[in-house]
Amino acid sequence: MRLRKDKTANEVVLENPNLVIKNFEEKINNWKKIYKREKIYLEIGMGKGKFIIEHALKNKDILFVGLEKEATVLVKALKKAKSLGIDNLVFLNEDAANIKTFFGNKEIDKIYLNFSDPWPKKRHTKRRLTSETFLMDYKFILNEDADIELKTDNSKLFAYTVVTLNNYNMEFLDLSVDLHSEREDVITTEYEDKFLKNNKPIYFLKVKFRNGE
Amino acid sequence: MRLRKDKTANEVVLENPNLVIKNFEEKINNWKKIYKREKIYLEIGMGKGKFIIEHALKNKDILFVGLEKEATVLVKALKKAKSLGIDNLVFLNEDAANIKTFFGNKEIDKIYLNFSDPWPKKRHTKRRLTSETFLMDYKFILNEDADIELKTDNSKLFAYTVVTLNNYNMEFLDLSVDLHSEREDVITTEYEDKFLKNNKPIYFLKVKFRNGE
Repeated sequence: MRLRKDKTANEVVLENPNLVIKNFEEKINNWKKIYKREKIYLEIGMGKGKFIIEHALKNKDILFVGLEKEATVLVKALKKAKSLGIDNLVFLNEDAANIKTFFGNKEIDKIYLNFSDPWPKKRHTKRRLTSETFLMDYKFILNEDADIELKTDNSKLFAYTVVTLNNYNMEFLDLSVDLHSEREDVITTEYEDKFLKNNKPIYFLKVKFRNGE
Repeated sequence: MRLRKDKTANEVVLENPNLVIKNFEEKINNWKKIYKREKIYLEIGMGKGKFIIEHALKNKDILFVGLEKEATVLVKALKKAKSLGIDNLVFLNEDAANIKTFFGNKEIDKIYLNFSDPWPKKRHTKRRLTSETFLMDYKFILNEDADIELKTDNSKLFAYTVVTLNNYNMEFLDLSVDLHSEREDVITTEYEDKFLKNNKPIYFLKVKFRNGE
């Protein structure tokens, strides 16, 4: 325990190559074969991992991949997953902008975007995880039946997202502007739990790309 | 004044044929010519008229039409408009389901839907003013550049509307899930003012039909 405390998060990441994946050349287009699962659900911006760990525990037949740029946050999820001995969850300590170097065409069956950075300034629009550049990448890695589920507490990011996805000709499958008042058994993130205590609404959207476009 | 108090709302409506229009055969396809205006903005479910009267006072070059099924509510707007001597606002004491018998193809330049009845029960879905049947009629009476602006406090009606309009292939021009926090100079309805006092969010959507579809 003493040693671990002294290590930086980046070192912990490198010490766990089976859980925090780095060798993408071997994995790309082969994830399902390697992990012996027929579906892959990807959370982009996983944070400390509560949401994806709960999903992984409930759905053992699906491979979950948690992408998180910040190593210090990712290692909290990593430690939790290791202590629970979960075998259907791996992590990527990477930037979502490079997503097409991790996954092949149509390799992913669902994307979760939870409480993404709103990047409120207009000049940072392209950094929002629902901007057109990201949508193009999602369309490439998602299979034709796949969907994207998105939650946020940020009213402006939600408005931007709904308008952008509509203009991108995506199909809206489900939407709520007050998720927790309207639905039961919602699996939450750490951030979401804190937010709920203040009685603020959570916005939710589920979409898919229209086929053949 | 004594006499007026004894009259029913329906009688007041019939006494004001220049303001509460009935002879649609004469008006259909001729509204702009008759009222010497180049644009017509229609509010469906006008209520007591605060919203449309403010708009009419600010935009004298546009003809405003307030449609309201309930005569008892409509006469409040009627009296207010008369006392203000507004000449660019008329009323329809009619059912929105018959809208194509009042207006011709492409005759309307904007539709406002403010705090429409949410009709929460599934079997009443078709009565919602944003159900497909109504959208078909709106598409008929709206010109190609026209838009629809919608406000509601009802989270479920808003979610239903966003999903339905997306599936109807409408273009989203603007959206807010917290209108009064994000915008200034919003013209409100009577109902909206009451709602705002409770600090509840107002949902807003502005859409248009895509051309050539």
